[in-house]
Amino acid sequence: MTTTLPGIADIRSAATRLSGLIVETPLIESPDINKRFGGRILFKPETLQRTGSFKFRGAYNKLSSLTDEERSRGVVAFSSGNHAQGVAASARMFGVKAVIAMPADAPAMKIGNVRKMGAEVVPFDRFREDRAAVVRPYVERGMILVPPYDDPAIIAGQGTIGLELMRQAKVLGVSLDAVVIPCGGGGLSSGISIAVKDASPGTSVWAVEPEHFDDTSRSLAKGARVANEPGHASICDALLVAEPGALTFEINRRNLTGGIAVSDDATRQAMRDAMAHLKLVVEPGGCVGLAALTSGKIELTGKCVVVVLSGGNVDFGAYAEIMAAA
Amino acid sequence: MTTTLPGIADIRSAATRLSGLIVETPLIESPDINKRFGGRILFKPETLQRTGSFKFRGAYNKLSSLTDEERSRGVVAFSSGNHAQGVAASARMFGVKAVIAMPADAPAMKIGNVRKMGAEVVPFDRFREDRAAVVRPYVERGMILVPPYDDPAIIAGQGTIGLELMRQAKVLGVSLDAVVIPCGGGGLSSGISIAVKDASPGTSVWAVEPEHFDDTSRSLAKGARVANEPGHASICDALLVAEPGALTFEINRRNLTGGIAVSDDATRQAMRDAMAHLKLVVEPGGCVGLAALTSGKIELTGKCVVVVLSGGNVDFGAYAEIMAAA
Repeated sequence: MTTTLPGIADIRSAATRLSGLIVETPLIESPDINKRFGGRILFKPETLQRTGSFKFRGAYNKLSSLTDEERSRGVVAFSSGNHAQGVAASARMFGVKAVIAMPADAPAMKIGNVRKMGAEVVPFDRFREDRAAVVRPYVERGMILVPPYDDPAIIAGQGTIGLELMRQAKVLGVSLDAVVIPCGGGGLSSGISIAVKDASPGTSVWAVEPEHFDDTSRSLAKGARVANEPGHASICDALLVAEPGALTFEINRRNLTGGIAVSDDATRQAMRDAMAHLKLVVEPGGCVGLAALTSGKIELTGKCVVVVLSGGNVDFGAYAEIMAAA
Repeated sequence: MTTTLPGIADIRSAATRLSGLIVETPLIESPDINKRFGGRILFKPETLQRTGSFKFRGAYNKLSSLTDEERSRGVVAFSSGNHAQGVAASARMFGVKAVIAMPADAPAMKIGNVRKMGAEVVPFDRFREDRAAVVRPYVERGMILVPPYDDPAIIAGQGTIGLELMRQAKVLGVSLDAVVIPCGGGGLSSGISIAVKDASPGTSVWAVEPEHFDDTSRSLAKGARVANEPGHASICDALLVAEPGALTFEINRRNLTGGIAVSDDATRQAMRDAMAHLKLVVEPGGCVGLAALTSGKIELTGKCVVVVLSGGNVDFGAYAEIMAAA
């Protein structure tokens, strides 16, 4: 590993680049949810972020870090949809071409949004094709790969959420006991953990994953990267990776208290709770942090905890079905 | 009419009382929605407010304006649900008893939330019983009536939204061409209009109502209060009143450019647009402002317009059905 890990200075620079381009998402709370858990639960809804998820932060920061010459060659990415939208939106803002490899079974809303932002979508079979191989021809042609998580500029961009939430907690006059973050490849949790630990070393940081996709949880427990068993499925399309990133895990290994795996049923219930108590549309992968509060693994009584709601890009039909099952 | 109309000073006082107790709801926008209308549309989501609607602002301000002796007698209100929740939450914060008369066909979520906040719910038949008569025994017993809209302290509380949005627009460096507001009895639109017109006399202010409940629109056109024809229905449970308030209409008559009536189908489509593009759960009555943008009555091309999304308290089943119809 020769790449330098990103640090707090990189996150501060990213925040400056992103200023005025991103929504500073507020902290939202619900008296009902606070009462249920006996603590103060503050939600950071990145569902309200440009492109409907946090991914714009990292993608734009990455594109900003390229030279004009590099950007002029265009960018290429693979993503189930949220990173895709972040890259497509950023590329359009820089006026450069974007090609995105997306699983053919990604939510229609995500594929549609990427196309609407002017990017070329290359569909691939998530179960049979290697996503890296799908983008290789474009990289060989000179286009710049924008990785979904294992990249210092991406991690620093997502980390700006950590700067914001620490500042917002300070304005509220609260000190944070824990921050709870959805985790796929680990870009969001590693980035946020850097900013949180810099400001408040005593705050614990948790990564939350879907059952059977708890590679980061198991890697943290083991102290080394382990992969997921193939052959499983989850409704959390945004969080389905094979194993933790190298950079992201190196950061998470140092900063995270642990990982928590949640069932799809717990995630569905959390989506209904977000609808009823927060009035927020949260996609499955974006809602696992709220689902994790019922796991009993995080101490909540009398505590103050931030839960990141990382995205809200879910199809009407899938969402209606989950809401109707209340 | 002997009651003095509230003014900007009353709204500023209300903002001071509410500071730290309310969510300063952000301005949210969607590139897709901006593109569709050819202007910049900023949404003020009071869906994220304490109790899931703007009503807490007015109710808390009203309870603050009472003497200790008055508050000790308890408060009583009639409401389809959002004002009920605002009054119940405020009464609990002051530690006083609250009795709320609610239509038996109000959304179950609204009735359940009022009960959870410790208020006594007295159901009544919206079609056969006079709501004023239902609360009369409680008022005769000494309890203080908290009216849903036609009261200076209520209007001033709702007006704090106008102060916030003008300040937020200034931070964004935009001048507002129009502000578009859902309208039932007119408390929200009249309160906001005072703050908007004080800061920017050239900004037009619009009230939006459901078809067949466009009493304010028709009253504005006629220059005098007219009532709705009985016998109609609408999904916008929060906006179904018989006629404009006396105080609210007196203010709206001076400040509003006009009123717009929208169909329930347009409101359903607006709810789907809010879900897909804003990731916000908006109840029917809360979403009529977005529905009004397609009416063609408000000039949008190249303009900057704030749309108030006034509440998000909708039952799972009703919401799922509307989302599934996409």
